[in-house]
Amino acid sequence: MASTNPNDFKFIREIPEGDDLERHVCTDCGWIHYENPKIVVGSVVTYEDKFLLCRRAIEPRKGFWTLPAGFMEQKETTEEGAAREAWEEAEAKIIVEDLLAIYNVTHISQVQIMYRAHLEAPEYKPGKESLEVDLFAWDEIPWDQLAFPTVVWALHQYRDVKGQKHIAPFGNATGDLYKQSFEMLTR
Amino acid sequence: MASTNPNDFKFIREIPEGDDLERHVCTDCGWIHYENPKIVVGSVVTYEDKFLLCRRAIEPRKGFWTLPAGFMEQKETTEEGAAREAWEEAEAKIIVEDLLAIYNVTHISQVQIMYRAHLEAPEYKPGKESLEVDLFAWDEIPWDQLAFPTVVWALHQYRDVKGQKHIAPFGNATGDLYKQSFEMLTR
Repeated sequence: MASTNPNDFKFIREIPEGDDLERHVCTDCGWIHYENPKIVVGSVVTYEDKFLLCRRAIEPRKGFWTLPAGFMEQKETTEEGAAREAWEEAEAKIIVEDLLAIYNVTHISQVQIMYRAHLEAPEYKPGKESLEVDLFAWDEIPWDQLAFPTVVWALHQYRDVKGQKHIAPFGNATGDLYKQSFEMLTR
Repeated sequence: MASTNPNDFKFIREIPEGDDLERHVCTDCGWIHYENPKIVVGSVVTYEDKFLLCRRAIEPRKGFWTLPAGFMEQKETTEEGAAREAWEEAEAKIIVEDLLAIYNVTHISQVQIMYRAHLEAPEYKPGKESLEVDLFAWDEIPWDQLAFPTVVWALHQYRDVKGQKHIAPFGNATGDLYKQSFEMLTR
């Protein structure tokens, strides 16, 4: 795949006219590459008392387990994006319910918008970005083999409000959950 | 200001290796310009029973009234972005409370993340993107002079849950509010 790193191209950093911040400007053609935070859309997907997880076939964190989630595409809604990602990663048709959390992962300028969702039937199989897909009861979740701290956050926060109909969404984990979410993951 | 329209540059549309969708690829240097939905962060800001609105000094909808909101920048949280926008547009120091709504404006691939917020003191003045800034009681809001339908949605949804502590955030307006939000605005 071609490089997506601006540093591999003839960009310089300068403040465009009428702007306040430095941007990547191409010295070949003048194109200004505005970088804005990217949206990840995903969901905690359940079937009965089990959670749908996907083992990643791609980097980063290849081989580790994650929730179905990925970069939002143009012209779709956040809910449509979450459903599309579940289909692409797990060939799972999900019913998106409501907003569970918004996570701000500022060091990579990512906003993760995570929904509660469920499967109508236990039908799924690995999409091309997954090695395996499976349903796990809470005690079966491979906690030390999860891909990202935000996966730990979403699963715990989901459990905290289980059965509640109208919830105020969570933000980034704090306190013990935040700390443990980094400690429990195998590096 | 330099053009930000990919069509003004030597981009062609093609599907990069390892990708599924057509992207803008520069024929000069091979740079792939990925377009992802952009995040707008903003808030319904109140002081006592009044709402803070800004009259836009810039296009689109110059001269019309809007909520303090704008494009999220890199390395900030959504809440920090909402506070920054209130400062830039209204020189207002706001206390961000909780999430009011997420709007999907799919035809322009925009996700608007709107908070409830308040001013500690009625101190504000126009920033460089505003012609005027003022506090309006509900009945004083210049409804036909609002900039965007989502401003109408946010104000009404705010009022619907006024005084409620923990709220499930709204999505795009539906029904009468959706219809009226387009009809009431002066074009």
